[in-house]
Amino acid sequence: MTETIAHLRSLLEQVEDLKAAAAVLEWDQETYMPPGAADARAYQVATLRRLAHERFVDEAVGSLLDRARTDGLDPLSDEASLVRVARRDYEKAVRLPADLVADLAEAVARAKIAWQQARAGDDFAAFAPHLERLVVLNARKAEALGYDGTRYDALLDQYEPGLRTATLDRVFETMRAGLVPLVQALAEAAPPEDDFLHQPFDRQTQWDFGMAVLRDIGYDFERGRQDLSAHPFTTTFSVHDVRLTTRIRDDFFPTAFFGTLHEAGHGLYEQGVDPALDRTPLADGTSLGMHESQSRLWENLVGRSRPFWQHYYPKLQAAFPEPLGAVPVETFFRGINRVQPSLIRVEADEVTYNLHIMLRYELERALVDGTLGVEALPEAWNDRMEAYLGLRPATDARGVLQDIHWSLGALGYFPTYALGNLMSVQLYEAARRDLGDLDGQIAAGQFGGLLGWLREHVHRWGRKLDAGDLLERVTGSGLDAEPWLAYVRRKYEALYGLP
Amino acid sequence: MTETIAHLRSLLEQVEDLKAAAAVLEWDQETYMPPGAADARAYQVATLRRLAHERFVDEAVGSLLDRARTDGLDPLSDEASLVRVARRDYEKAVRLPADLVADLAEAVARAKIAWQQARAGDDFAAFAPHLERLVVLNARKAEALGYDGTRYDALLDQYEPGLRTATLDRVFETMRAGLVPLVQALAEAAPPEDDFLHQPFDRQTQWDFGMAVLRDIGYDFERGRQDLSAHPFTTTFSVHDVRLTTRIRDDFFPTAFFGTLHEAGHGLYEQGVDPALDRTPLADGTSLGMHESQSRLWENLVGRSRPFWQHYYPKLQAAFPEPLGAVPVETFFRGINRVQPSLIRVEADEVTYNLHIMLRYELERALVDGTLGVEALPEAWNDRMEAYLGLRPATDARGVLQDIHWSLGALGYFPTYALGNLMSVQLYEAARRDLGDLDGQIAAGQFGGLLGWLREHVHRWGRKLDAGDLLERVTGSGLDAEPWLAYVRRKYEALYGLP
Repeated sequence: MTETIAHLRSLLEQVEDLKAAAAVLEWDQETYMPPGAADARAYQVATLRRLAHERFVDEAVGSLLDRARTDGLDPLSDEASLVRVARRDYEKAVRLPADLVADLAEAVARAKIAWQQARAGDDFAAFAPHLERLVVLNARKAEALGYDGTRYDALLDQYEPGLRTATLDRVFETMRAGLVPLVQALAEAAPPEDDFLHQPFDRQTQWDFGMAVLRDIGYDFERGRQDLSAHPFTTTFSVHDVRLTTRIRDDFFPTAFFGTLHEAGHGLYEQGVDPALDRTPLADGTSLGMHESQSRLWENLVGRSRPFWQHYYPKLQAAFPEPLGAVPVETFFRGINRVQPSLIRVEADEVTYNLHIMLRYELERALVDGTLGVEALPEAWNDRMEAYLGLRPATDARGVLQDIHWSLGALGYFPTYALGNLMSVQLYEAARRDLGDLDGQIAAGQFGGLLGWLREHVHRWGRKLDAGDLLERVTGSGLDAEPWLAYVRRKYEALYGLP
Repeated sequence: MTETIAHLRSLLEQVEDLKAAAAVLEWDQETYMPPGAADARAYQVATLRRLAHERFVDEAVGSLLDRARTDGLDPLSDEASLVRVARRDYEKAVRLPADLVADLAEAVARAKIAWQQARAGDDFAAFAPHLERLVVLNARKAEALGYDGTRYDALLDQYEPGLRTATLDRVFETMRAGLVPLVQALAEAAPPEDDFLHQPFDRQTQWDFGMAVLRDIGYDFERGRQDLSAHPFTTTFSVHDVRLTTRIRDDFFPTAFFGTLHEAGHGLYEQGVDPALDRTPLADGTSLGMHESQSRLWENLVGRSRPFWQHYYPKLQAAFPEPLGAVPVETFFRGINRVQPSLIRVEADEVTYNLHIMLRYELERALVDGTLGVEALPEAWNDRMEAYLGLRPATDARGVLQDIHWSLGALGYFPTYALGNLMSVQLYEAARRDLGDLDGQIAAGQFGGLLGWLREHVHRWGRKLDAGDLLERVTGSGLDAEPWLAYVRRKYEALYGLP
């Protein structure tokens, strides 16, 4: 490592330490913090985040980035990657004027409260001016960041570096064309029974079962833990300290279990990053879409598969003899895979979920492009909901107001959820080709092959490879909706006995 | 508030935020952190502490302190106090050369490991060079900080601002003269029975009982919590977030319960600081001795008193019918107050404890003054142990190597433990004068009067008043060993049936 790069790295390590500290404080806030501490904690986190930002955009970092030479280095070496990724982050960070950052922070603080009240009171009009403000500020942000194609590109690039809106449109068009008729066909078929999932399930037993499965699939408790929180999340303070949370409903089995598997997917990704990258900006998932591909892979492709329950269902029945003793494995498997068009994204099944995302993407893009006004948003939402899922929300609270993301000013974020689903299948198919009888391994409770493959091909890279490059390298093709469509068709046509 | 003081305060708030964040990370490390995270966490805490220090000794702070005018203000106003205390802290901080701070940090890091190994192997010689180095560095530190009287003054002043070694000597001399014969007399008397304390006590029941008592005495769980850790401690991230930890032994009742009361005393102090002082250097205990006075007051003066158990013993028996059902309250009360000269400080009873401290003080002062060499320390320890407590350690592991403090470079710290005991009685007597039938209130399970009194006279001040000034203001006299001596004589001569 040259002296310049070593010096750069030491400055970046301090920035990472500050960000990690902020993340610890935020984790504590959601898990153990006493309620009276909320204001004090807000100040502490704000101070840490502000210092991290100040120290990152410092001239010293800029000057080292200017001087750092990586000509002779392998582009995928730690050093060359550090300079490349830090330079990209730095350029983005310094392009945003301080007053815009401050305006956004203030607008978000107000919008979050307004959104909570608007949702509680089913009063979109009360939220509308805040959303308008956030759309305007996001447009300013996009102009400040810059873009080649459309303004939305700049926003999308924050969460999915390198992906262009034009690509997204093409992929989503394929997805919609295949998905809407499939969802219609499934909605008309006889749904599988799932009443048995809505029964009392002892909380502690659910916790213990989830923890046992986490251990089995390779989540490392020497370098992580699981706690309870109101909303499940994964957070990382170091490659050696990656934490999950879950929540437990005592009258519905899937919430905790599939939530745990989902977060475990995120956590395994973060635990799998090359330890040599710890305390650098490279020690993170390469994009939100790639991150979501890992959570959805474990939640859906593994966790909602028949082989998985061939292995685990006898254990689950032993843990829950009362609610599940008389339910055959095939009935259970069909029940946890019931497809049902619904109004609420976070309750959506594996098949309809992407339609919820597409709808949000289309609307937020129109807002950013200026082709849709905020006042027309509820109607546009409801129309599209009816077109895609055959349902029309009776209230905005269960429609356009349901998600927090826009109130956080996070336009450009939603598509990554769908990208995660698509990439999860592209990667899983590649793993299956390399690993041989993957289903057989899973039916035998052997997850080491799969996890090892993901470590080697996805996790260890951290941010050294952009999502698109990684996908190309591993699967031989770019982002593609076809594998995912083929997967859901295959799985659900069989499950529903469709022709 | 003048603009200068407001600006100063905002800079100090950021420093406090950084220190609070470091404290959260340290709390997490002792309670929930996965073991693999230790190295990463050390980096994070070091970065936060270094930044807090850098930002505090920054010229901007110095210049504001120079310009801040408090002439017309009440010296005990928030503003004048902030400037006065921050100026004192600042002057101390800038007097320490950076290379001395770095040398000390490095020496401590090495000494801690050496001490652990030396204690495990009963090998003082292996620790001696590290201790020698720390004595030399502490002498340099004292010279850098400056002092009027003796070198030890500078070290003592770090933990007990304003107290002079000459005062300490006088007070300790009184204490020794009264205490050594009392301990001898108690050692010769028939000890009370306490076998019943060494029985199985269910862990969860111990936890629940301790939590209930915490609520009863007024510890605020909206602004605090209790967790488990290997070594009990109290830590504060804000007046609104003060946390305790405890540990539970399932074969000995007093460990968890009196540990909880002890930490609660620290916690009530921190929770009782005026919220207007939050995020400033004033929001802390005014000295380690005053802090310890609060923990010992609740642990010993309240928690080991007869009225306390008049109220709680029926509840305790109901919680533990098996081990305690047949033990009368008087037997229990005598058992938890058994006096027994022992080798280990942390296991010492209320009476002998101060002798352990005096011994350490005398030895560390001789080390700092240069009148005792490190090589002669074990022999000096053992001789004094015999003189004060009638016991001679068979090993250095159970003698001079038992405590961590010296390996942390913390010379000048030990006396504050004894000061806490002395001040606890001075304050308790004052509260008794003001509150009338304090014993009756406690026997009725009413702690609001006492806590309110402590809030008003001790807690709310934070660091606005030095310990000596506070004591003078509340009790009408300075630090004094006589009230404590009178208390232990009265209590233990009665308990042991001495003439």
